[in-house]
Amino acid sequence: MNQAQTEKPATAIDVVVMAAGKGTRMRSVRPKVLHRLGGRALVARVLDTAARLGARHVVVVTGHGADAVEAAIDAEFAGMAPRFARQMPQLGTGHAVQQAVPALPDDGTVLVLSGDVPLIGEPALRALVAASGGERLALLTIEFEDPTGYGRVLRDAPTGQVLAIVEQKDATEAQRAVREVYSGVMAVPARQLKTWLARLDNRNAQAEYYLTDIVGFATTDGVPVVAHRIDDPVQVAGVNSPAQLAALERALQQRQAEALMADGVRLADPARFDLRGTLACGMDVEIDVNCVFEGAVVLGDGVRIGANCVIANARIEAGAVIHPFTHIDGEKAGATVGPDARVGPFARLRPGARLGAEVHIGNFVEVKNSTLADGAKANHLAYLGDATVGARVNYGAGSITANYDGANKHRTVIEDDVHVGSNCVLVAPVTIGAGGTVGGGSVVSKSTAPGALTVARARQTSFPNWPRPQKKQG
Amino acid sequence: MNQAQTEKPATAIDVVVMAAGKGTRMRSVRPKVLHRLGGRALVARVLDTAARLGARHVVVVTGHGADAVEAAIDAEFAGMAPRFARQMPQLGTGHAVQQAVPALPDDGTVLVLSGDVPLIGEPALRALVAASGGERLALLTIEFEDPTGYGRVLRDAPTGQVLAIVEQKDATEAQRAVREVYSGVMAVPARQLKTWLARLDNRNAQAEYYLTDIVGFATTDGVPVVAHRIDDPVQVAGVNSPAQLAALERALQQRQAEALMADGVRLADPARFDLRGTLACGMDVEIDVNCVFEGAVVLGDGVRIGANCVIANARIEAGAVIHPFTHIDGEKAGATVGPDARVGPFARLRPGARLGAEVHIGNFVEVKNSTLADGAKANHLAYLGDATVGARVNYGAGSITANYDGANKHRTVIEDDVHVGSNCVLVAPVTIGAGGTVGGGSVVSKSTAPGALTVARARQTSFPNWPRPQKKQG
Amino acid sequence: MNQAQTEKPATAIDVVVMAAGKGTRMRSVRPKVLHRLGGRALVARVLDTAARLGARHVVVVTGHGADAVEAAIDAEFAGMAPRFARQMPQLGTGHAVQQAVPALPDDGTVLVLSGDVPLIGEPALRALVAASGGERLALLTIEFEDPTGYGRVLRDAPTGQVLAIVEQKDATEAQRAVREVYSGVMAVPARQLKTWLARLDNRNAQAEYYLTDIVGFATTDGVPVVAHRIDDPVQVAGVNSPAQLAALERALQQRQAEALMADGVRLADPARFDLRGTLACGMDVEIDVNCVFEGAVVLGDGVRIGANCVIANARIEAGAVIHPFTHIDGEKAGATVGPDARVGPFARLRPGARLGAEVHIGNFVEVKNSTLADGAKANHLAYLGDATVGARVNYGAGSITANYDGANKHRTVIEDDVHVGSNCVLVAPVTIGAGGTVGGGSVVSKSTAPGALTVARARQTSFPNWPRPQKKQG
Repeated sequence: MNQAQTEKPATAIDVVVMAAGKGTRMRSVRPKVLHRLGGRALVARVLDTAARLGARHVVVVTGHGADAVEAAIDAEFAGMAPRFARQMPQLGTGHAVQQAVPALPDDGTVLVLSGDVPLIGEPALRALVAASGGERLALLTIEFEDPTGYGRVLRDAPTGQVLAIVEQKDATEAQRAVREVYSGVMAVPARQLKTWLARLDNRNAQAEYYLTDIVGFATTDGVPVVAHRIDDPVQVAGVNSPAQLAALERALQQRQAEALMADGVRLADPARFDLRGTLACGMDVEIDVNCVFEGAVVLGDGVRIGANCVIANARIEAGAVIHPFTHIDGEKAGATVGPDARVGPFARLRPGARLGAEVHIGNFVEVKNSTLADGAKANHLAYLGDATVGARVNYGAGSITANYDGANKHRTVIEDDVHVGSNCVLVAPVTIGAGGTVGGGSVVSKSTAPGALTVARARQTSFPNWPRPQKKQG
Repeated sequence: MNQAQTEKPATAIDVVVMAAGKGTRMRSVRPKVLHRLGGRALVARVLDTAARLGARHVVVVTGHGADAVEAAIDAEFAGMAPRFARQMPQLGTGHAVQQAVPALPDDGTVLVLSGDVPLIGEPALRALVAASGGERLALLTIEFEDPTGYGRVLRDAPTGQVLAIVEQKDATEAQRAVREVYSGVMAVPARQLKTWLARLDNRNAQAEYYLTDIVGFATTDGVPVVAHRIDDPVQVAGVNSPAQLAALERALQQRQAEALMADGVRLADPARFDLRGTLACGMDVEIDVNCVFEGAVVLGDGVRIGANCVIANARIEAGAVIHPFTHIDGEKAGATVGPDARVGPFARLRPGARLGAEVHIGNFVEVKNSTLADGAKANHLAYLGDATVGARVNYGAGSITANYDGANKHRTVIEDDVHVGSNCVLVAPVTIGAGGTVGGGSVVSKSTAPGALTVARARQTSFPNWPRPQKKQG
Repeated sequence: MNQAQTEKPATAIDVVVMAAGKGTRMRSVRPKVLHRLGGRALVARVLDTAARLGARHVVVVTGHGADAVEAAIDAEFAGMAPRFARQMPQLGTGHAVQQAVPALPDDGTVLVLSGDVPLIGEPALRALVAASGGERLALLTIEFEDPTGYGRVLRDAPTGQVLAIVEQKDATEAQRAVREVYSGVMAVPARQLKTWLARLDNRNAQAEYYLTDIVGFATTDGVPVVAHRIDDPVQVAGVNSPAQLAALERALQQRQAEALMADGVRLADPARFDLRGTLACGMDVEIDVNCVFEGAVVLGDGVRIGANCVIANARIEAGAVIHPFTHIDGEKAGATVGPDARVGPFARLRPGARLGAEVHIGNFVEVKNSTLADGAKANHLAYLGDATVGARVNYGAGSITANYDGANKHRTVIEDDVHVGSNCVLVAPVTIGAGGTVGGGSVVSKSTAPGALTVARARQTSFPNWPRPQKKQG
């Protein structure tokens, strides 16, 4: 390709996202582009990329499940103010873009993306737009070992200039030997695109309007057609079936794992790591096998996450250790684990769990909407809900905050240095005064004074030589 | 292979399953063919296939661990009425079939299968029997990239007719270059098989009677020998070691995962999915990483299964969500989860758990042999055993049904709209009347009236300025 | 290589371990050689190998993080009495060995190993030392498909004699085509090594003293240079980044899994198995997917480990079944599970848990520093800490040993055949006499007589038509 790339001022990028397809092979009531990859809808990933490119206008062509697709996009991309163009019925890729371009000005470069090709990268697209340069038709291409089924890119041998895209079924033997294929992504000056779209017809085997026909018009019109070829098949991989979705999910997860490892995160097994959101890690973070992260998670320096944890929407401070089989999901309220805290195994932190420094939460303990100050401990089989727990409190095995009276939720306050015995019930609203002790098995419904021992316990009585129940004869 | 396949009425299929081998490399006291693949004994998978083929007679040749093998087969295949022929000692494959054929009539086609080659497919076998056509010796073959160790299939170059099978150690250099090998599976007219078996001898290096020697007899007798070649190595893979068993397990799991995905099931990671039984899925089922399914499991439309669940013998209705770390095993009694129910994380459903619509079972909750009507909730640290729980019941954290008096189990009935507080014990047999409330920490051993508040609670007493126990000097 | 290997008495092996590197790409405050592979520090694995070789002297060259590295080694290898030579600053591999050799006698063979090449095998090293034969410079080499970046081994074509090692950047095109590379491991007579080290200079592009320059000196001095080439890239793989560490971890785990399977252990998925320590297995052990083993674990004949278990420092006797989601860590005290016991799902055994034969530990049960005699059961939601539990005891759901008074831990004794009801608290120190019964919900703080029924329970009272709390208007 020895043609000169003329320098000229960059034109604005206007993005058209094709999102009208049904995705029959997904066998789902959900529109294809709303299926999730790494926890995020396919089309949302494409729009994220459009946003990073600084797209001036974004038009999403919708069709199957248009209401759902548009609602999902509106809910997340209000700031982008995408416009929607409905394509009903779907008469081909050219027809799809025809619906979109009336919403776009003539002076930009139109970048055509697919809502089901979620991992297209911003650098590749910037290079493609640069190749278009505001005046050329630029196609994103890739070489496949086995190009069967894809449209082949035919080039003029001496110049490298692209002459045409020929579909598999229309290709000669020699053309089928070509391994460079068109990815479905192009950048094209809006003005020319509009004239070419107007010239499309559907006189072909499938009676559809093909966008790729504009390559021929460009050649006819003397507009250079250039290709920007990338090496990375993941970026142009589309999702048409659950198997393709699963394969792309693994590719994404592998990339995410590699990026984290390059930043120093130590993953026991990159093939058993799932991140569906963002994971910000300090130095010397270690993550054992088979962990899943969702939403926004922050792990401080030296945090260790044991095997088989599920952690979502949480901040875990430096030096904290999360033992295996721990489930943390802060949802919208978030959850925090303080420095050098110990959580798990078999612990669950729910929204609004706020653990201070060196807090210990042990096995079979649930914490919801509760604050535990530094050094507090709930080591075994316990529930803390809607509670404010002071520093150094020891909350006994089997103890429960009865925060719900069947109609309303109330708050339990356990002040500093309290020792709550085993199998207690603290009936909220109630306060256990600082330094107090609650005897095992007590139901406490009235607030107690600081330093007091509180019990609510029946007298122990024994009946000697008690005859055990006998097994009934069945 | 241009020989004509003569049309004639199909003969009956009689199956001989070789199941006498010891499997030394398994290093197990269990007979090799009783090792499990996808949760099912190897030989049972072969017999399942024989049943699908509509086999007239099935003879299993047993030897090592014959009692155990025969008992296991009898327990599962009573309807098939397989016969057993004991081969003791084991003097080779020909000797094995010699033990079996007296039990078979002369007019059928004998299909020889191996009890340790579990994934042979019904279509391949039907094609093999068709290739035999009641009058030819038909061998199932496959091409291997590296055929080392396998018996090579020697063909007459012009006709493709099979001339012989030559073992690795007897093969010339040229013969070793042949990549088509014999799989161990053949279909052969019974009448000829019997005459050929009678002519076998053991004058060879290993002093064994080789079944493959009949190829030579067929050629001598002018009986055509044909090959049906398949492409799929998994179908002819035998199990001789734990490593081979593990590799075949992964191949089976991958196939099962692919089949489910083709039906629309969304698997977060097909490489971390295990099905040992049957899994019937509705539309839009999602299964997160690292789940294991056993026995018969049914998942309704839109069911979502979280990461790291183990689910066996259960029916989960449409819209239900199973959170991570949930263990469900209905065993023989089964377990059901109603529509739009929520279960887990860290929940366990045991045999006879029957959850209605929108039931919530939360963390560290165990349900056994209990029915929960629509909208009932047991959200935290609880045990429900032998209980009948009404609609909209709220069963408090830490509460227990004391269903076992040390000798007999009794039933607890909690009627509609009851609110059971925290850390209660309901001593069965007992009924909590509709709309009633049980105060936290109560032990209830007498039935209560509808609408009543029931408490069994000691008075709360405080001792001010109570001196805490002091740390003993160690 | 047709040069004669002269027979002579074996010389002593003295090992130099290079452990001064920073490991910048690890992005860790931890010195590189202290990162863990299979649960063990990289350098510790190298020293383990040195010990198995019967090394006479071991000198570890330290630099970055020298204090931490030396302390870690001293703590584990006291018996080996390794010496340390500090290399500060780090001026190259030759400079590193220069620091080490003053500590070594002249009469041995010096084996140079890297502290970040952890899986080098003892047989390869023995063969390398034999190739040195006390008089030759012997290099450990390997052929790589892609040798880019490695030092190429240049040989004299007719004799195979090694002439030089040429670094990537100094190599000609022809030299770069050589695929045999130097591994960084050599064996060399100490006397010669010392003279050659004295002749090193740093007049090269990186101004470092290269150990590989001694190859040229050997050639000059007429000392034969030989290569021992191995085939296994894992043995020479170094760790320079978290990604390399993870890749080597998987390679190690795969090898360990293969070794266990060859011994008859049945792994449901060798790719989802992690062993960080030692695992001794009897016959017919089955391990389901995604289990992690740490420390020293012993599994008896017929033990079955369910999916998703984490097991450390434990002995599990023959016939025991560990259900999914079980966490066992005996730490220093150890944990034992008796023959035919049943543990889990969702059970946790902590240090000092000692379960007898046929003990059952069920879901959401924690056992710490407690002995359970044969046939004892704790099936649901319970805590046993610092307890001695007799034979056939049934420990009820939700029951707790209150072993901690806030200052000291005390012991609970539950004698044979006791039946403890649900949601009890046993306040230690306390003894429940043999055959006794404790009613549900009781707090028992005084010891009870054998055979007695003990209750500590308030009278059940009902208030009819109790008005439920009403939902407050928000």
